[in-house]
Order: sequence, then C-alpha cells, then structure tokens
Amino acid sequence: MSPVMTVIRQAARPAGPPREEDFEVVSLPVPDLVDGHVLVENLYLSVDPYMRQLMDWGGWELGGGLEGQSIGRVLESRDPSLPVGALVVHRHGWRTHAVPAVAEVRRIEPAAGVPLSAYLGILDITGLTAWVGLTRIARLHPGDDLFISAAAGAVGGAAGQIARLLGARRIIGSAGSAAKVEHLTSRLRFDAAFDYHEGRPADLLSAAAPDGIDVYFDNVGGEQLEAAIGALREHGRIAACGAVAQYNTLSTPPAAPRNLLDVVEKSLRFEGFIVNRHLDAREEFERFLVPRLRDGTVLIDETVVDGFENTVPAFLQLLRGGNIGKMLVRLTAE
Amino acid sequence: MSPVMTVIRQAARPAGPPREEDFEVVSLPVPDLVDGHVLVENLYLSVDPYMRQLMDWGGWELGGGLEGQSIGRVLESRDPSLPVGALVVHRHGWRTHAVPAVAEVRRIEPAAGVPLSAYLGILDITGLTAWVGLTRIARLHPGDDLFISAAAGAVGGAAGQIARLLGARRIIGSAGSAAKVEHLTSRLRFDAAFDYHEGRPADLLSAAAPDGIDVYFDNVGGEQLEAAIGALREHGRIAACGAVAQYNTLSTPPAAPRNLLDVVEKSLRFEGFIVNRHLDAREEFERFLVPRLRDGTVLIDETVVDGFENTVPAFLQLLRGGNIGKMLVRLTAE
Repeated sequence: MSPVMTVIRQAARPAGPPREEDFEVVSLPVPDLVDGHVLVENLYLSVDPYMRQLMDWGGWELGGGLEGQSIGRVLESRDPSLPVGALVVHRHGWRTHAVPAVAEVRRIEPAAGVPLSAYLGILDITGLTAWVGLTRIARLHPGDDLFISAAAGAVGGAAGQIARLLGARRIIGSAGSAAKVEHLTSRLRFDAAFDYHEGRPADLLSAAAPDGIDVYFDNVGGEQLEAAIGALREHGRIAACGAVAQYNTLSTPPAAPRNLLDVVEKSLRFEGFIVNRHLDAREEFERFLVPRLRDGTVLIDETVVDGFENTVPAFLQLLRGGNIGKMLVRLTAE
Repeated sequence: MSPVMTVIRQAARPAGPPREEDFEVVSLPVPDLVDGHVLVENLYLSVDPYMRQLMDWGGWELGGGLEGQSIGRVLESRDPSLPVGALVVHRHGWRTHAVPAVAEVRRIEPAAGVPLSAYLGILDITGLTAWVGLTRIARLHPGDDLFISAAAGAVGGAAGQIARLLGARRIIGSAGSAAKVEHLTSRLRFDAAFDYHEGRPADLLSAAAPDGIDVYFDNVGGEQLEAAIGALREHGRIAACGAVAQYNTLSTPPAAPRNLLDVVEKSLRFEGFIVNRHLDAREEFERFLVPRLRDGTVLIDETVVDGFENTVPAFLQLLRGGNIGKMLVRLTAE
C-alpha cells in the first residue's frame, strides 16, 4: 500500500472563473485505519459543474478536503462487510486515496458488459439527475416534445437519451459549439440542436421547435430559460437541475427570464430539484438503464482525462465547456 | 322592459395606465330575442385586474362588447329551462342589459343568509382562484406558513381567509397602504402584514416572517416574488395567479426575480394557473365556503360602487389600488 496520499485542496476563493492557482496539491501520510473504515485507492474522479459553486463562500473550506464523487478499490479494510478488492463509489474525491467510513461508501458490482466508468457517470448521480428530472419533476409523457439546454453535458446527454426511451417525440438540445451540436444530432440522436452562441436563444429555439415544446430540462437558467418559457405549450413543465450560467457570476445574476407572466398565462410549472433528495429512485433507474447500456441502446457519453495530476485542468476545462458528456479523471489503468 | 341598453366599449388602446377616454358609452336597442336566449338586466358588474391586460393587443376588440363577470336577473326568456326572475352569473358585463344564450349563463340560487354580491365575489371566480391556488397548486398543508401579496385585493383576502380554515399556521400579507395593512391584521386576521412601499420587499418579508415560509400565493410577480423565493423553505411552493405589477408595463417587464437559482437549491415549485382550467373545483369549493359565509367565519370583503355610470371610474380606481377586497359595481337596489 501507498504510505502517502496526494490530495487537492482549494487554496483561494475565485473572483470569476477559477484558475489553477486557486488549488494546491499536498502529500499527506495515509492515516491509521480505525474500525469501520476502509482505505480506498481511487480509480476515477468526477469533476462536475456544481463544484464551481462549492468554491465560493459557504461551500468548500479553504485548505480542507474537497468533496467529489469517485470510484475506488478497497486496499485495506477494518470492516468485515467490505473486503479488500471491493469496488466502491464515495464522495472523497480530489485525492489519490481516501479512508471513508463504510457507511459513507456504496459498493458496486459492475454488470457484465458495462464499463466501470459508467458507475461514476450515467449510472450515478449524473444519470439519476436526468432520470429524476424527467420522471419525477417534469413527469414526461410519451409524445412530449422536449428541449434540453447544455445537452452535450453529462446530465443533458443522459436526459436526451433517456427521454427517447421514455417516449419523447421531438428532442431538441442546445450546446456551446458546432462540434457539440453535431455530437447531439449524430451520436445521441437528438432531432435538432443549436449552438446558443449563434443568435438569440428564443429565435434559435423557435426555429428548432416551431410548434413549441411540452417540457424543458433546464441546466443553465438565464436566456435559455426565457426562450423555453416562451416556447412551452399550455401546462408545460420545466425541471430545473442547475444553473451553470450563474455559477461564475453570482454577484450579477442574469436579468432573464423576463417573461414569467407566461408561467401564469400558460399554466406552466417550474420546479427545481436536488438529486440528493431523490436517491430512492436509484434502484428503479438502474433496473431501467443497465440493460440499455449492455445492448448499446444508450451510449456512455464521457470525456476521460488520464492522470491525477490533470484533475484541476480537467475541472477548468469542464467549466470552459471543453467536455462532451461526463467529465472524468482516470487515475490508473483498470 | 327597457327598450335600450347602455354598453361600455373600449375606444382606444392605453399606453400605460388607462384613462376614462379609453372607453366610450353607447346606447343600443335591445336586440330581438331568439330561441335559447334570455334578456338579462344586470344587477352587479365585476371589475378585475386581469381586464387591464385585455385592453392591450389581443384582448378586447376596440368597439366590441367587453367581457366581465356579472350577476343579472332574467327579464325575458326564450328557453323554458330558465324562467323570468331567475338570477344568473354570466360574462356579458360592462352593460346594463345582455342577451346571452342559456348555455352561457350559470343560474344561482343564493343560500339564505348569503348576500347576492358574494356570488360575484368570494363565491365566484375570485374565491375559486384562491381555493384552487391553495388546494390544487400550492397544495397547502396544515401548519404551513404562507405569504400572500396583494392580500387586500379580492383574491388575496379570500386566500388569507380560506388558508386559515385549511390550517395554515402563520399568514402574512402585503398590501399598498397603511389602511389595507390594518384591514388585513384587524378584520381578516392575518398574523402580520406590511405595506410594500415601506422598504425592500425582501427586508419587509424577512421581518414579518423571520423563520421563512412554506407557501407563497403570488398575485404580483416582480420584487415580491423575489422576496418570497428568498424566504421560502426547502420544498416551498409558489402558486402564481396573476402579475398585476406587470399589467401596466408590459413593454418593460421587471428584471426580478434575480434569485431563480434558489428555486433549484431549495427544490421549490413555481406554478402558474388560470382558474378557468379548474372550474370543476367549484362544487367542492361552494360546499366548503357557504356554511362559513353564513356563520360569519369568512367575511365578505368587498368595495361596492353604486351606479352603472361609475363603472369605468371603479375600474380605474381598482387599477390604482383604491379598493379593499372585491371591487363591484351595483346597478340597482336589490
């Protein structure tokens, strides 16, 4: 076993987009294991948009351990229920090793034909967010027309693929580059997609969905939310799971949406959710998704960066939109 | 019977607050009755905030008949199901007489001890809006803390009184004058109330509800909606039934709320509704309310203006906030 572990900490509060200097990398001795804990070697780390917000006041502690979803293998165990060699998902990310309590980890036993990384992506919080947003919040019906923003991101891409299987009729996505738009329509089988830089979101959405939409899966807020409110039909629903557009600019939140009156006039429902309040949906979701991952109906849509030393660059790249699908760091060959 | 009827029409589209010159009053011969129609003498006319919006493009036709909820008495009938003398509620308002089809009217038989005007106020669309907003949209639970904007208006006052009977714990209202605030706390038994002119709505609400709220009944949008989003607890609900703050300023809608990210972080639900989509709730609502009107548990909260010639002034007064409770015009002594 490794006598030291390498840990990334936040060193400074960013004013605007975070930089590499806002983080520090330290080596620490692995603490002695106590009963009920395990030593885990991390194999994959997840970097996610919500972490940007944790970098501000009230989120991550400066100099403290950062939270982040990870997959690791048990190297040493002080609990008989979790043997050496077991694979676990846990939240002690941003580090090479962790010593979580057994109660803090979730053991996984990857299904044959499903790659390990899926258990940190579409089979984990990312996919569950898409599932909960579609089934519990938006309550998608077969035949609904759906718009998804940040659709080439991890949640958005999962939402588009899952919505298709749930019977959505027309699926429209927005993304931040021509390559991502191409990815949506060619690989993820969206019916239409647009680059939100190419005009007013209201015009772009209206061109892509001239007859309107029934559901909007909101990952960004702001102008695209306004466009969606305009395009929604009566009794339309918005599932809001994040607001990336605001994460870097909390001091000056966007003026949009300016058309909230439409929420009344069209009897719309705009509902936010945090996936952590819906973890009980995990079992039904896995039952639904695993067979579709195995037979290739659902693509595992991920950008994998190799090497622990590239964790911070991977996170910064994610915040600049430099990923397609789930952004992961692979620490070691499986 | 009267050989002529007097009718108010819209003469011009207002730019900003409507003026008396935007209306015209004309006398017309009463048309000949055809089968299936009745001649109705109007007794009460309702003027409502939503009418401001109908004055704009896409609403009322210039020179056409205006729509408005009314109570009338049948003077002449060409349908055996609706005899002379019957009392009816219908939408041919803004006039002394109307000749609706029988299918367009709803016959009422006022319960003993309930004044006729209640059937155009708290027992009609006004009260039903409060009922639907609380029971179907916000899904108020006993023990919930509730904030209502425009609480001295017809819908707001009804919502406060009904919420009390549904078991709301703390009921807070906002209104536009000290007299209205006093009315809310002394007559309608709100637990707290504030005049929204007296500071930032967020500060005023936070002083009135330091521990937060569970439900917001939104009649205004804008800054008060933003304040409510800030004050709502996790899983809080907003029922949005109107946006009076926007009616006079549709060309420059307010930028607020700027805190929609809170909708996600606190898993809030913001849902608009149009009461016309919920008319099936009328029966349960009447069953609930009539006994409470009879025994005086619920006050009939209205401002009554006498004389058909005062209809336009009454409407303009309503838009300036010069009413407490439901605003009605009484055409003739009962």
